[in-house]
Amino acid sequence: MTAQQQSMLTGSAVRQDVKKGTVIHNGSTDCLGLLLISSGQLRAYILSDEGREVTIYRLFERDVCLFSASCMMRSIQFEITIEAEKDSQFWVIPAQVYQQVMEQSAPMANYTNEIMASRFSEVMWLIEQIMWKSFDRRLAAFLLEEAVIEGTNCLKITHEVIGNHLGNAREVVTRMLRYFQNEGMVSLARGTVEIVDTKRLERLAGK
Amino acid sequence: MTAQQQSMLTGSAVRQDVKKGTVIHNGSTDCLGLLLISSGQLRAYILSDEGREVTIYRLFERDVCLFSASCMMRSIQFEITIEAEKDSQFWVIPAQVYQQVMEQSAPMANYTNEIMASRFSEVMWLIEQIMWKSFDRRLAAFLLEEAVIEGTNCLKITHEVIGNHLGNAREVVTRMLRYFQNEGMVSLARGTVEIVDTKRLERLAGK
Repeated sequence: MTAQQQSMLTGSAVRQDVKKGTVIHNGSTDCLGLLLISSGQLRAYILSDEGREVTIYRLFERDVCLFSASCMMRSIQFEITIEAEKDSQFWVIPAQVYQQVMEQSAPMANYTNEIMASRFSEVMWLIEQIMWKSFDRRLAAFLLEEAVIEGTNCLKITHEVIGNHLGNAREVVTRMLRYFQNEGMVSLARGTVEIVDTKRLERLAGK
Repeated sequence: MTAQQQSMLTGSAVRQDVKKGTVIHNGSTDCLGLLLISSGQLRAYILSDEGREVTIYRLFERDVCLFSASCMMRSIQFEITIEAEKDSQFWVIPAQVYQQVMEQSAPMANYTNEIMASRFSEVMWLIEQIMWKSFDRRLAAFLLEEAVIEGTNCLKITHEVIGNHLGNAREVVTRMLRYFQNEGMVSLARGTVEIVDTKRLERLAGK
């Protein structure tokens, strides 16, 4: 990148602080810009006509959120919602500025390619999960992943929120968690799911 | 692009003819190159450990196949198989040549971005189908799409091949097609599925 391109990017970047639960990008009507996450956690998900959700991927510190600038590329023809899962801070580079630099700069365009390819890989992984894995294995994998993200085996999460991540109804989640509890893999209390047998959950998840 | 870059691409391109059923790219071990399809039809699909298939997208005349050159980008971390669904002809640009030009040329890198974004859009559409649509609606949509591609309502296709496209067992396909037949939407014969009531299939598919 030239010095001019660099200063265009840094000069246009705006810092933003959002509270947990804030919707940052909502479908193709929004085009906030590219986000560089400095702290917190974002979740990208899709919504069915009936209001069911499924998480497509998550973004953490130092990740780049590309689809909040989806107007940059006319071939991006899908609706995605991006929400802060925790209080988050990020830098926003306006879509037009980013697009202008990307059109001129091969390194920037190649960098964007790599970001898109890694989101693509996550989405392909998700398709494999949905197509080939039964719900008990997906739920086990989700609980283990949450424990790593949160750094604790005692997860503060409702059955409804789990359903929104996995694309299943709350009742289905509750039923399976009760089965996990009967089998001694988790312990349930109001608003929490505690992992008590990590090894067995890992075997179930196929790890 | 510079004249030198253009001649690198055209000079390295090799024309290839393949028969229906040829596997052109098989997972991450292969890295043939970028394909420019001049005639025929390709299918990109994923495979489960148990050998079940699901079609991710299809490629037609003038489409570009990017993931047959997946070694170009290290962020492409998934296994995809590409197969000729019909006798096909295409030009192959070797992955290293394409990568070298893309690293220097912003237009080429941006063009690659657009190709990837349109495949991404197709994959997002597939996730929505799998997550929110019941199998009868997906099968109806598939039959209608096939009729458009083949230009006929009398499809020469086995129940097993339909299952490989949609990620379902042959028995499940057969059961649903018999239901469609009882309802007067299709007519079944050995190796063919004939659409007899397009309007009703369209309503079922949600079109």
